[in-house]
Amino acid sequence: MSWHWLIEWQTPYEFHGHEIKRVIAEEKTQYQSVMLVEFTRFGKGLIIDGKVQSTIYDEHVYHESLVHPIGISLDPSPKSVLILGGGEGATLREALKYNSVEKAVMVDLDEKVIEFAKNELKEWHMGSFDDNRTELIIGDGLDYIKKTNQKFDLVILDLTDPLKGSTSYKLYTKEFYEDLKKVMNKRGGIVTQATSPSFSLEVYSAIYTTLKQVFSKVSASYTYIASFDGLWGFVYASDDADPSSLSKAEIENRIKSRINSPLRWYDSDTHISLFSLPKNIRKSVAENTRISTEADPIYVPA
Amino acid sequence: MSWHWLIEWQTPYEFHGHEIKRVIAEEKTQYQSVMLVEFTRFGKGLIIDGKVQSTIYDEHVYHESLVHPIGISLDPSPKSVLILGGGEGATLREALKYNSVEKAVMVDLDEKVIEFAKNELKEWHMGSFDDNRTELIIGDGLDYIKKTNQKFDLVILDLTDPLKGSTSYKLYTKEFYEDLKKVMNKRGGIVTQATSPSFSLEVYSAIYTTLKQVFSKVSASYTYIASFDGLWGFVYASDDADPSSLSKAEIENRIKSRINSPLRWYDSDTHISLFSLPKNIRKSVAENTRISTEADPIYVPA
Amino acid sequence: MSWHWLIEWQTPYEFHGHEIKRVIAEEKTQYQSVMLVEFTRFGKGLIIDGKVQSTIYDEHVYHESLVHPIGISLDPSPKSVLILGGGEGATLREALKYNSVEKAVMVDLDEKVIEFAKNELKEWHMGSFDDNRTELIIGDGLDYIKKTNQKFDLVILDLTDPLKGSTSYKLYTKEFYEDLKKVMNKRGGIVTQATSPSFSLEVYSAIYTTLKQVFSKVSASYTYIASFDGLWGFVYASDDADPSSLSKAEIENRIKSRINSPLRWYDSDTHISLFSLPKNIRKSVAENTRISTEADPIYVPA
Amino acid sequence: MSWHWLIEWQTPYEFHGHEIKRVIAEEKTQYQSVMLVEFTRFGKGLIIDGKVQSTIYDEHVYHESLVHPIGISLDPSPKSVLILGGGEGATLREALKYNSVEKAVMVDLDEKVIEFAKNELKEWHMGSFDDNRTELIIGDGLDYIKKTNQKFDLVILDLTDPLKGSTSYKLYTKEFYEDLKKVMNKRGGIVTQATSPSFSLEVYSAIYTTLKQVFSKVSASYTYIASFDGLWGFVYASDDADPSSLSKAEIENRIKSRINSPLRWYDSDTHISLFSLPKNIRKSVAENTRISTEADPIYVPA
Repeated sequence: MSWHWLIEWQTPYEFHGHEIKRVIAEEKTQYQSVMLVEFTRFGKGLIIDGKVQSTIYDEHVYHESLVHPIGISLDPSPKSVLILGGGEGATLREALKYNSVEKAVMVDLDEKVIEFAKNELKEWHMGSFDDNRTELIIGDGLDYIKKTNQKFDLVILDLTDPLKGSTSYKLYTKEFYEDLKKVMNKRGGIVTQATSPSFSLEVYSAIYTTLKQVFSKVSASYTYIASFDGLWGFVYASDDADPSSLSKAEIENRIKSRINSPLRWYDSDTHISLFSLPKNIRKSVAENTRISTEADPIYVPA
Repeated sequence: MSWHWLIEWQTPYEFHGHEIKRVIAEEKTQYQSVMLVEFTRFGKGLIIDGKVQSTIYDEHVYHESLVHPIGISLDPSPKSVLILGGGEGATLREALKYNSVEKAVMVDLDEKVIEFAKNELKEWHMGSFDDNRTELIIGDGLDYIKKTNQKFDLVILDLTDPLKGSTSYKLYTKEFYEDLKKVMNKRGGIVTQATSPSFSLEVYSAIYTTLKQVFSKVSASYTYIASFDGLWGFVYASDDADPSSLSKAEIENRIKSRINSPLRWYDSDTHISLFSLPKNIRKSVAENTRISTEADPIYVPA
Repeated sequence: MSWHWLIEWQTPYEFHGHEIKRVIAEEKTQYQSVMLVEFTRFGKGLIIDGKVQSTIYDEHVYHESLVHPIGISLDPSPKSVLILGGGEGATLREALKYNSVEKAVMVDLDEKVIEFAKNELKEWHMGSFDDNRTELIIGDGLDYIKKTNQKFDLVILDLTDPLKGSTSYKLYTKEFYEDLKKVMNKRGGIVTQATSPSFSLEVYSAIYTTLKQVFSKVSASYTYIASFDGLWGFVYASDDADPSSLSKAEIENRIKSRINSPLRWYDSDTHISLFSLPKNIRKSVAENTRISTEADPIYVPA
Repeated sequence: MSWHWLIEWQTPYEFHGHEIKRVIAEEKTQYQSVMLVEFTRFGKGLIIDGKVQSTIYDEHVYHESLVHPIGISLDPSPKSVLILGGGEGATLREALKYNSVEKAVMVDLDEKVIEFAKNELKEWHMGSFDDNRTELIIGDGLDYIKKTNQKFDLVILDLTDPLKGSTSYKLYTKEFYEDLKKVMNKRGGIVTQATSPSFSLEVYSAIYTTLKQVFSKVSASYTYIASFDGLWGFVYASDDADPSSLSKAEIENRIKSRINSPLRWYDSDTHISLFSLPKNIRKSVAENTRISTEADPIYVPA
């Protein structure tokens, strides 16, 4: 009988248990508790503060669904990328797959997590920290975008969920998106991870509606991620590009001309499936009126 | 802290726990152990032998995804329906929504479960057992299709998973599908629940490939079902109708003209999302060569 | 694989799971949530608010350890008994085994629990509610002892643990014990369940020390109770009788002359084992200075 | 909410969960999987194959209860000690506390576990591996006692439970005890850990009865061990010494004259409590007729 377990609580009345085969590395940083394990089902997996961040089994599903729908839809193809969060280096890895990218700035708060990732998560970052287009900044994303004078074509928010008591909730507010817009080029686009439409549909919907206040073209996608035991959501925004209206042919053309490394998950059919929202999600997104602001932010249920 | 739990084991190294608020009814029948509970997250839920069968929260997602993609695609609209399994009466409920249906025969093995459903699962069957088009037969589906001289337009297999040691595995074999074909009208269609593409993708794929041996048009769909903590799959087959190629306009037209009661989940967009398989599922279905036969049947992992 | 579970949290970092075979009866009263189940390991068990109260497997260990060490040590044998709590009726059952008992008053707050016990817990009370020496009073024990003009030889406190936010904590304070003393005869004795020396040793010890403030002879006992997954404690107090100093011969004599029904657990050797405290418990009791008062009550950790 | 857990299955229908704060070291040896963790409740704890072996919280309860009741009762005080198993080095530590001990031979199968213990379990062995009276032999205890020409005053069996499929079950049979007797001095004594009287009372009782076939004076003890979530048992045997009949005064005298380091748990009152068996255990030991032999061995339920 199995005996070594991660038990993740989605709500106080629901938990999922995954057998741990072994603990590979563990570290407590100033900000969080980080553990790399081998799961029986998923293989290597990164756990931060008791939440599975990603596993070898399907990290590509998460990271390709985050980056490519917006990356492909931008016209022209992005030259400059800004990533907030994304400690594993896998979001960076996907961004660097675009021939057009000349610079990718990644801003993460937790230096020790980055060190941990560099040493332990090679299957994730695949050397992308050493790419000469990469600029790594240890610091607060909020500060960075207030101070920088650079402008970006593609902004990727690969952040922890908006938790009560954390500061990450600020990175999901209207005010923050307005600030972000100032560091974006006119035809640029943005994507944010948008929590789980199965466990926090109202937060997912609020992220959509909040971005709608700031950008003219906003679309929401979702996919099932086994390592998260449920659906996961993404919201893309731009004043120019609209991923949800791209034709399959156009997607395939752009993948061929723009991307220089193999994709494991993303293709034109996957693109269509990402934007084919089932009725309850569609309805929630369409009818939602809740906006997240500094004065009245949204949180995922603790 | 919550203390009354259903713990469902998806594999020996993965379990999901759901808090039970109260037990409404419980019964051990000759064949199975049946329990109706109120879950904190899902509301009323039916548990058979420790597996969540369906809950008020999303039984409509399961039952509408099972019945309507094939029901709508048949031309002409079905007059006669055969349901094997489907004890809750909700599959019957969906089938009876078609104006064209004149007769719906439901065959279920376990009389006590049917009695239980009639008394306790009114939100599921909504009186469909009393519809004068319904004919209920207590017995073995395998026997029934060998003896009946009726022919059906629509056959719905709402069965338990093919478990080792059970007899239900026979209802997923090539030989069984061949027998079924003999009780179907030429332009008729069939659907079977096809287990979980997240927990048993190889079984899902084998059901697809097995039906391909017997019918010329076969398509696979999937959706996320929160009550099952994962994806669920369906396979549709016919020599005439192909749900995966219907246009959105045609779907909306047929819903309007054929269906006389509200649908909660199924519409043309949901139809598209059901057939938008993500890459790994697409690949598994396309590349699978495993066929289930009486001599070499497939099973879900116990 | 088992799927229907009681999960009891001893602390936020420890839980014990017991498989439930079936739920026999369930009821929400004004005060608590009551459930009678059949456990695979223990057989029938009563659960109140997620805590196992007692099971057929070893309720006799608990109830005989509560009643008889003090009942046997009183001289003369008790005529009048007061029980506060004890809803199952098993404490009453044990008290009525003394030939000398002429009256047993039982005071319990929750009428519905008593009704539940009368109907469902016959193996516990064994008809003792119908004994003509029994007087059952629905009401608050605190009120009762302030108003009654009766005096008792034996007082048995079979109460829920002193929980923060409950009112039961008052029934473990010095002030309450002083009030109780006023309704006791001079040579009478008292016993209280005293929580778990394995999970809340400091509470167990404080109950001992608090009773020491009010009575001259106080002794503490303990035993292992499988249904509680740990040790359980009892404290006995009197100005006259001292259970911990009785000889084995005297115990056996008194059992023979005083008790008219079989005992399943209690005998002179069990008596010795109850008072043979291991070193850590002995030390905690001896060195404790904490007293529970209305102004500064003790609680078990929630 | 806690998320990193050891879940120990006492039976297929009972589990206990303990929160793990961190994993300190982990190793797979040829024979077993070894993990040193920090538990929230117990502090450092050693886990082998999913079973808690001992924790800093109460390893002294286990090891002192194993060694001293027989060590103290031997007359004269033991000079030569043989330990089979006992990888942590804590049994060795207790044996070396006797002034009289001139030689302690410890035989353990798993060299890597010994290395692990030497490096990681300093709070357990406290340097006893380096005591110049210690002789450490890596090998099979069964072989050792067949080949050695030494004789011992005190033999301590600190072995894993008799599990089906393991070879340790041989070390609980009548034939093994007969072989052991040949390497013991006339007035010597033996102790074996005897599994849990709460989870496997019939095995505990059978160990007692089996030793009774070989030695004239056999006694059984038990105590509660929180880290094991239940009672634990020990059986002592000799043709000369009888721990269960020692007076408290004699015990205290011998502790003073024979033992040169502090004891944390064992004293004369603890000795009495160890041998004060509650009624059900007494009865099981007294009435048991099951003997473990090579042809018909006993096992703990898997």
